[in-house]
Amino acid sequence: MAEASGGAPLAIICGGGSFPGAVADAVAARGRRPVMFGIKGWADPAVIGRYAHHWIALGQAGRFFRLAKAENCRELLFIGSVLRPPLTALRLDWHTIKLMPRVIRFFRGGDDTLLSGVAGVAESGGLRVVGVKDVAPELFVPEGVLGQRQPSPRDYGDIDRALKLIATLGPFDVGQAAVVADGHVIAVEAAEGTDHMLARIAELRRLGRVTAPAGVGVLVKAPKPGQDRRFDLPSIGPRTIELVAGAGLAGLAVTAGSALIAEAEKTIASAERASIFVVGVREPGVAPRAQ
Amino acid sequence: MAEASGGAPLAIICGGGSFPGAVADAVAARGRRPVMFGIKGWADPAVIGRYAHHWIALGQAGRFFRLAKAENCRELLFIGSVLRPPLTALRLDWHTIKLMPRVIRFFRGGDDTLLSGVAGVAESGGLRVVGVKDVAPELFVPEGVLGQRQPSPRDYGDIDRALKLIATLGPFDVGQAAVVADGHVIAVEAAEGTDHMLARIAELRRLGRVTAPAGVGVLVKAPKPGQDRRFDLPSIGPRTIELVAGAGLAGLAVTAGSALIAEAEKTIASAERASIFVVGVREPGVAPRAQ
Repeated sequence: MAEASGGAPLAIICGGGSFPGAVADAVAARGRRPVMFGIKGWADPAVIGRYAHHWIALGQAGRFFRLAKAENCRELLFIGSVLRPPLTALRLDWHTIKLMPRVIRFFRGGDDTLLSGVAGVAESGGLRVVGVKDVAPELFVPEGVLGQRQPSPRDYGDIDRALKLIATLGPFDVGQAAVVADGHVIAVEAAEGTDHMLARIAELRRLGRVTAPAGVGVLVKAPKPGQDRRFDLPSIGPRTIELVAGAGLAGLAVTAGSALIAEAEKTIASAERASIFVVGVREPGVAPRAQ
Repeated sequence: MAEASGGAPLAIICGGGSFPGAVADAVAARGRRPVMFGIKGWADPAVIGRYAHHWIALGQAGRFFRLAKAENCRELLFIGSVLRPPLTALRLDWHTIKLMPRVIRFFRGGDDTLLSGVAGVAESGGLRVVGVKDVAPELFVPEGVLGQRQPSPRDYGDIDRALKLIATLGPFDVGQAAVVADGHVIAVEAAEGTDHMLARIAELRRLGRVTAPAGVGVLVKAPKPGQDRRFDLPSIGPRTIELVAGAGLAGLAVTAGSALIAEAEKTIASAERASIFVVGVREPGVAPRAQ
C-alpha cells in the first residue's frame, strides 16, 4: 500500500510515548521523509524533535491540513497514546467546527467509532491514512516466545481464555486487555487502560482479593475484533514488564503481527530479569503463516 | 420449595454485611427459627448475635454439620459477603480434608464453580441448600423506579447495553456489574468487586480518563447468566449509593427479582438526597409479569 506514495513525505500525528520516534526511524531508514505533528500535551518534544516537526492541538484539523499540504504529504499515520479527550478540552478551529456534527457522533460511541471517524475526517482533507503495518512492520511482536522464559501449559490455558474473552467483548468496543489466572478472569480492561489495570491487580493481591499465588496469571493484549488496524494497536514496552512483575503474574502474551513492542531489546531484557515470559501468540481465527 | 421443611429451623451461614440479619428477620417473621452460623472474620457479631448462633471458620464443614444436626436443621442458606479465600487461609478440619479433591477443583474455576461446589458439599452432608427467594422474597428489588428520580432515555440505553454486556460475559464467569456512560463501556467488574470499581471511576474522572460529564452513566448489576441463584446474588445498599454518587453517575439499575437491596428505605432516601435514580429492570429474556 505504501508503495504508491513511497517517495512523498509521511505525516505522522504523534501522541505520547516512544512509538512515534520508532516509526519515524523506520520510515527514515527506508529513505522516506517523516514529518512529525506533535499533539500538544501528549507528544514528547525529545521524541519528535529529532525530525522535521510541527505542534498541533486536538481539534486543529484546518491547521494540520494546511501544514501537511505545505510539506507535500499525501499520506498520514497516527501513532502514540492520546486518551479520549474531554469535549471541553478541545480547541476547535473553523475547519473542525464545520466537521462538528461528525465529531460529536464519534464521541457518542466507543473508541473504535471515534477513531474511524478521525480517519474519515483526515481522508476528507485529501490525505490517505496508513497504518504502522504499511510503513514499519518490524515494530510488531513476532509469533513465538521472546527471551528465555517459557509459558507453562497452564499459562497457555489462561492465554486462550483471555483471547476468547477479548474476542467476545468485540461488539462492546471495550478494551484490548484482560488478566486470567488459572482459568479465573481477574481483570477486564475498559476506560482505565492497561497500566492502571495492572496496578489494581497488585493492590488486590495485597488486600487478599486476588488469591492466585504469585507467578500465576497472564496479561493478554489483543486488538478488538473488527477494529481499524490503522489506530490504537495494543502495545507493550518496558513499563508493561515492570507492572506485570509488580502484579505477580507469570508473564504476558500479545497477538503476533498486530501488537507493537516499544524498545524491544530493553523490554525483553527487563522480562528476563523479572523472570516473566513474553510471547507472541496467533490471533484467534488467523491461520499459521505458510513458509 | 421451603414449604416441605417449613417447620424445621433454618441454618443460615452468614458472611459480612447486614443481609444475614435481614434474612433472619424475614424467616423469624414467618414463624421459623433461624440458626446463625457466622463465618469468622466475615460475619458481624452484632448482626448474628440477635439470634441463636455459632461461629465457624471457613473449611470447618465437619463442625458445621455436627452443629446443624444438633440444632435439627434440614435446610441451609448462604448469605453475606465472603471473598474467595486464599487457599493458605483455610483452616481445614478432617471432614473437609476428606473433601479436598473436590475443594481444590472449586478453586480452579470461577466463583460459580466454587459456589456450586460448596452446595454439593453441603448436600453431601444431608442438608438441602435453599435461596433467599425461597425464604425472604421481600428482600429483592421490585420492577420499576424506586424513589422520585427517573432514568432518561439515554440512561435506559446505557442500562440495555450493560445488561447485554453482562449476559455476554456469562461463559467467562466474570462479574455481575458494569458501568456504561452514553453508550461507552467504562468499567467491567471482575475480581475487584463493585465498590472498588466505582471508586476507580471516581479516580479516572479526576484524572480526566473518564470524560463523560457528571450525571451521565449508569451502574448496572445483574446475576451472571446461568449462575446458581442460591448464592452470591447481586446486591445494593446505602454504600452503593454513596459510591455511585461519588463516581458522578446518573443512577443505578439492578435486575428486578434477582438482586437484593439492603436497608431499602435508607438506600432509597440516600439516592433521593444524592439525586440519583434506582431502578429495577427486567432481566434479559424474562417475560413481563402477567397480571
